[in-house]
Amino acid sequence: MKNGIMECSVCHSKLVSPSAKTISRAYDRHKSRISSKQRALNVFLVVGDCVLVGFQPILVYMSKVDGKFNFSPISVNFLTEITKVFFAIVMLLLQARHQKVGEKPLLSISTFVQAARNNVLLAVPALLYAINNYLKFIMQLYFNPATVKMLSNLKVLVIALLLKVIMKRRFSIIQWEALALLLIGISVNQLRSLPEGTTALGLPVTMGAYIYTLIFVTVPSLASVYNEYALKSQYDTSIYLQNLFLYGYGAIFNFLGILGTVVVKGPSSFDILQGHSKATMLLIANNAAQGILSSFFFKYADTILKKYSSTVATIFTGIASAVLFGHTLTMNFVIGISIVFISMHQFFSPLSKVKDEQNGVLELHDVHDKQRYLLISLLI
Amino acid sequence: MKNGIMECSVCHSKLVSPSAKTISRAYDRHKSRISSKQRALNVFLVVGDCVLVGFQPILVYMSKVDGKFNFSPISVNFLTEITKVFFAIVMLLLQARHQKVGEKPLLSISTFVQAARNNVLLAVPALLYAINNYLKFIMQLYFNPATVKMLSNLKVLVIALLLKVIMKRRFSIIQWEALALLLIGISVNQLRSLPEGTTALGLPVTMGAYIYTLIFVTVPSLASVYNEYALKSQYDTSIYLQNLFLYGYGAIFNFLGILGTVVVKGPSSFDILQGHSKATMLLIANNAAQGILSSFFFKYADTILKKYSSTVATIFTGIASAVLFGHTLTMNFVIGISIVFISMHQFFSPLSKVKDEQNGVLELHDVHDKQRYLLISLLI
Repeated sequence: MKNGIMECSVCHSKLVSPSAKTISRAYDRHKSRISSKQRALNVFLVVGDCVLVGFQPILVYMSKVDGKFNFSPISVNFLTEITKVFFAIVMLLLQARHQKVGEKPLLSISTFVQAARNNVLLAVPALLYAINNYLKFIMQLYFNPATVKMLSNLKVLVIALLLKVIMKRRFSIIQWEALALLLIGISVNQLRSLPEGTTALGLPVTMGAYIYTLIFVTVPSLASVYNEYALKSQYDTSIYLQNLFLYGYGAIFNFLGILGTVVVKGPSSFDILQGHSKATMLLIANNAAQGILSSFFFKYADTILKKYSSTVATIFTGIASAVLFGHTLTMNFVIGISIVFISMHQFFSPLSKVKDEQNGVLELHDVHDKQRYLLISLLI
Repeated sequence: MKNGIMECSVCHSKLVSPSAKTISRAYDRHKSRISSKQRALNVFLVVGDCVLVGFQPILVYMSKVDGKFNFSPISVNFLTEITKVFFAIVMLLLQARHQKVGEKPLLSISTFVQAARNNVLLAVPALLYAINNYLKFIMQLYFNPATVKMLSNLKVLVIALLLKVIMKRRFSIIQWEALALLLIGISVNQLRSLPEGTTALGLPVTMGAYIYTLIFVTVPSLASVYNEYALKSQYDTSIYLQNLFLYGYGAIFNFLGILGTVVVKGPSSFDILQGHSKATMLLIANNAAQGILSSFFFKYADTILKKYSSTVATIFTGIASAVLFGHTLTMNFVIGISIVFISMHQFFSPLSKVKDEQNGVLELHDVHDKQRYLLISLLI
C-alpha cells in the first residue's frame, strides 16, 4: 500500500484504499464544495422523504382486501428490488444520453466492470437488508408489534455508534444526548400504543429475547451505515450505477430467499404475482422510491439526517391525520414531538458541534450540518 | 442617585441602590470567592433537600387518621411560619453568642432597625407565598389534583423567565431547552397518574381556567425569584436576620388569612391547634426545615438549583419506594428520569454556557455552575 493506492491480491488492479480516516478523496473534495445545488438536493431529499412516508399508510390501507393482505409479503420485497433495478437502468440510460463529449462513457463494458469491481462492497448492505426482511417476521413471533416498533427506536443509537466506528464521525456529548432524546421522543409518542400492562417494564427478559433484539436492531443499522460507507467510498461512480449493483445484489438475495421458501413450503409460494392489485403496485412503487431516496441520503447526506427526516415525516402524518380526520392530539404526541424538535435543534445546532482539537475551528462536516440545520429550521 | 448610593425620600438615609445589573456588590464579591466552604454548603443543601423531600410523603401518610386529615390545612401554614420564626431567633442568638470582638453587634436595636429597613423587600415574597397557599385550594376546585401537579411543572419555565428579567441571568439556548426538558421529563413521569381520558389534550379551555393557571403558576415563581433577589441584594445582612423578617411577615400574612377565615366561616376555625398529633408536628417541622433550606438555596445558590434538587429528590423517593415496597418501575418513570438527567447535564454542563460577548470568556457565574455540575454528577 503506497500513497493510499492498494493492489488487489487477486487481479493486481490498482485500487484506491478506502482508508478509514478519509473515506474517499473524491468525497472529501465534494465535502468542501458547498453549492446551492447541494442545498436544493437536501431540501428535495427531506421533502421527498416526507411525502413518500406520508403516502405509505394510505397505500397500505388501500392494499388490504377485507382487512388483510392477499399477497405474500416476501414477494413485495422482491418486486420492490426489481422496480429499483429497473429505475436504476432507466436513469443510467438517461444519464448516458446526456453525457458531454470527453466524459468517461457510462455504458462501456470496461467502465461497468471496473465499477462493479470497485463497488463489490455494496453486496454487504444488500445481504444485510435481505436478512433484515426476514428478521422482521421472526421478531413478531417474540414480541407484539408495538414492542417491536419501540425496540426499533434503539436503531438511532446503534447507527450513531456504527457511524463513529465505520465512518469515524465524531459527535459531541450534546449530540449524543440529542440522539438519546430522539429515541425518547419517539418512544413517548408510542407509549400509549403499548398494550395495557406493558407500560410497566415487563418486557420478556429471556436471554433469547435479548439476543434477537440485539440482532434485530444491529442488522438494519449496520446495513444503512455500511451502505453509506460503500456509496461514499466510491464517490466517483455514478449513483445510478451504484444503485444498479446494490439493487441487483438485493434482487438476487431476495430471490434466493424466495427459492428457500419454495423448498420449505412447496411450490405454491413461488407465485410471486399472486394477490396483487393496482394499489399494491403503487405500494411497491412507493417502497422502491423510498429505497432510491435512501441511496441519495446515504451518498449525499447521511444516515442521521435520514432518521430525522423519517421522524419529521411521521410527525407530519400524525398532524395531518388529526386535521383531516378530526382526531384529538394526545398528550403523548404533543410531549413526544416537543422532545423530537428539541433533539433536532440540538443535533444540528452549531453550538453543539465537536470542535477540531488541533486548531479549534469547525470541521468541514459542520458546514454541511449547519446547512441541514437551516434547512430543517426552514421546514418546521 | 450617585455611585450606586440612593437617598431614601422618606427617612433620608443612604441606601445602596439595588441596581439591576449588579444585584449587590457584596454578592458580587461573594461570587468571586469560591471556597471549599461554598462547595460543602452546596452538597449540604442538595443532600438536605433530598432527605427532607423524601420524608415528606411518609409524614403526610402518618398524619392521616382513618385516611383523612383532622386539622385545618391553613393552620399548618401558620404553625410552619411560627416554627421558622422560632428557628430563626434561636439561630440568631447562637450566632450572636459566637460573634468575634469588633464585629457589628447582631442584636443591637440599631442593627435590627437598619436591617429591617433594608430588607423590607422580603415582605413581597412573604405576601406572595401566603397568597399561593390559598391559590392551591382554589386550583383544586377547577382541576383534578393530577392536572394541578402537571400545571405546576410550568413553574420551571416561568422561574427562568423571571430570573432573566429580575436577576438579569442569561441562559443559552441549550439551557432553555434543558429547562423545557426538565418540564417534559417530570410531565412524562406524571402522565400515567392522569385520570383515564385526560391523556387526550382535553384540559378545560375556558378563559377563566387559563387565567387561574397563569396566576397559579406565576405567583409562587415570582415569590421564589423575588425572594432570591431580596436575599441576595442585602447580602451583608445575616441570613438568620433575613429569615426572621421573611417568616415574620409570613406569619403576619397567614394570621390575617386565618382571621379572614374566622370572619367568613365563624370562630370554630380559629382553633388552629385542633386535630394535631405528634406526626403532624413532625410534618410541620419538616415543612419548616424545607422553608429554611430554601432560603439558603436562594441566598447562596439559586432557584434553578433548588428546582433540580427537588426533582432529584422525587426521583430518589420513587426509586427508594420501588426498592423498599417492591413496586415495578413504570416505563414512564424510566423515560421521565432519563429526560431529567439529560436536562440536568445540559443545564449545568460548561459546554452549554452563555459566553461573554465582550471577551469570549466564561462569566464568573459559570464557575459556580461548573461546581454545581460536578456536585450533581457526584451525587448521581
